[in-house]
Amino acid sequence: MGYIGKRSRILGRVMDDAVVLGPSFIDNDTFIDGDVTLGYPTRSKLKEIIIKSYDELDNISNGVFIGKKCIIRRGSIIYENSQLEDEVELGHNVLVRSGSRIGRGTRIGSGAQIDGDVLIGKDVSIQSLAYIPAKSRIGNNVFIGPLVCVTNDRYPPSRKLVGVIIEDEAVIGAGSILLPGIRIGKGAVVAAGSIVTSDVEDNSIVLGSPARLHATRAEYEHKKRKYESG
Amino acid sequence: MGYIGKRSRILGRVMDDAVVLGPSFIDNDTFIDGDVTLGYPTRSKLKEIIIKSYDELDNISNGVFIGKKCIIRRGSIIYENSQLEDEVELGHNVLVRSGSRIGRGTRIGSGAQIDGDVLIGKDVSIQSLAYIPAKSRIGNNVFIGPLVCVTNDRYPPSRKLVGVIIEDEAVIGAGSILLPGIRIGKGAVVAAGSIVTSDVEDNSIVLGSPARLHATRAEYEHKKRKYESG
Amino acid sequence: MGYIGKRSRILGRVMDDAVVLGPSFIDNDTFIDGDVTLGYPTRSKLKEIIIKSYDELDNISNGVFIGKKCIIRRGSIIYENSQLEDEVELGHNVLVRSGSRIGRGTRIGSGAQIDGDVLIGKDVSIQSLAYIPAKSRIGNNVFIGPLVCVTNDRYPPSRKLVGVIIEDEAVIGAGSILLPGIRIGKGAVVAAGSIVTSDVEDNSIVLGSPARLHATRAEYEHKKRKYESG
Repeated sequence: MGYIGKRSRILGRVMDDAVVLGPSFIDNDTFIDGDVTLGYPTRSKLKEIIIKSYDELDNISNGVFIGKKCIIRRGSIIYENSQLEDEVELGHNVLVRSGSRIGRGTRIGSGAQIDGDVLIGKDVSIQSLAYIPAKSRIGNNVFIGPLVCVTNDRYPPSRKLVGVIIEDEAVIGAGSILLPGIRIGKGAVVAAGSIVTSDVEDNSIVLGSPARLHATRAEYEHKKRKYESG
Repeated sequence: MGYIGKRSRILGRVMDDAVVLGPSFIDNDTFIDGDVTLGYPTRSKLKEIIIKSYDELDNISNGVFIGKKCIIRRGSIIYENSQLEDEVELGHNVLVRSGSRIGRGTRIGSGAQIDGDVLIGKDVSIQSLAYIPAKSRIGNNVFIGPLVCVTNDRYPPSRKLVGVIIEDEAVIGAGSILLPGIRIGKGAVVAAGSIVTSDVEDNSIVLGSPARLHATRAEYEHKKRKYESG
Repeated sequence: MGYIGKRSRILGRVMDDAVVLGPSFIDNDTFIDGDVTLGYPTRSKLKEIIIKSYDELDNISNGVFIGKKCIIRRGSIIYENSQLEDEVELGHNVLVRSGSRIGRGTRIGSGAQIDGDVLIGKDVSIQSLAYIPAKSRIGNNVFIGPLVCVTNDRYPPSRKLVGVIIEDEAVIGAGSILLPGIRIGKGAVVAAGSIVTSDVEDNSIVLGSPARLHATRAEYEHKKRKYESG
């Protein structure tokens, strides 16, 4: 069953069984797949009023903004007050919570979760089942592998969340865990399965648990060129 | 497409496109979102009979019990014979398998999976994409971080499952793995990314792979107070 | 809302609200649950043409082949050009991408993802939330635990993907990470939470990060027998 809220403005294409809530804007050449939900209201609103139908969800939603040439696949849910710039692409069952902003050309893999108040730059690749909590800050051209777990609470469960900062061009290997409040430097590489407990310098490669300096990005790129041509 | 079984008894609010199977009971002030499935039948039943429609699924389901003031969000699936006490809250795409019981005020994050025959206490927080297998026992006020993996088979794939016991007030950090049959003591803390291979004493903090004693809960609480006020 | 494409040939049972695209074939005694999508088109096709309805998705899909006595549960999505042999069973929200082949009797847990061009043998068990990327090759009777992360890119993001090979009877413990291009030998066991960076010999057990030789499969089976009878 689909639902298109009356306040929405849709220039792109929306499948009949998508749900579009609030004053959502969907720009040209964007494809919203079936079983997608846009503009889902935040927890505090859901708890405040009596919801019986999509009309009520629609009434309390602030909507989302989705740019041109985006693809949002079946099962994905985007909360209100989120903004996706042009050419953003989501896999299946991606969750983007309220107040997130995702830059142009970024792609997010199936099952990944982007919690509220997350900023993600342009041309970022976030792979399947990665978890990015509230207050994370991710630069441009970052790569985040599958099942990466970013965190934001040093002494859970606490009242204070501190986001991780991931600078431009950084690479976070599959299954790594980033502890709260650290900064992954520009061009830094975190090897797969590492647990990163402190800041990582620009253009350095870290490895292990806790992650230690292992090599430089220049060495990584050298090996990568050999690998790609081999 | 929604479906409400004739044997269900609904006092709360259920969106039109939810699926409610069997003699499910939904108490006052509970919100069942669209695209939620309640009372899904177990594997053995599915394999036994010819299913062609929701009527057949409805006929073979024992239903679920859901207390007052719960919120069950889009995409979540709760199997038959499960019981959610009052004020339980599920994120999106949460899976709760057959015979689980979830205590009052507990919240389960999006994409988390609670397998069958799991007991979870009151005011527990289970974060996104955590996996809790069959026979796990979780006390009250426990915190389980994102992508935590609890296990139950020492020599997979075997015929014998041994649940993990997590006592009251314990904290399991993000991405940790708990091996089968261990006990996490009351108030114990497992640091993020640890692999816990043996019992953890009450009020101790363990860290690493395999996890070793690192500090006490009192020290944790001291640091937490400084962190929160900092 | 369901959709059954005109080119599909359905001998089994398909719930009304499933989506079946392209010339999909569904054999006898197979159950396709509601909210399942079969024959989803690949990314390149989605980007090529203007999609406004299931008819267009149907037109561009090559369909899937699903054998006898399979069970595909709610929320699962299978891309075009995939083939599931007889008695394959998928949990909820499983994603199988284009060009994958899954052998007879294999079971895949909820939330697991099988990327494109993956070959999986017979009677394999893949547990919840495991991630199996493109080009992986998995033999018969393999066990892959929950939240296991297989990888395929040595220097991400690169232009060259190298699949992991997992031979018959291997066991991959919960939450393990397998680095690209390695071979897990016949009957080998990877302990839970290990990070495997190089080939593992037949019938050996490896443990840790990086994973090192720990014992033999014969010792594992000996301990397993004691455990199961204990």
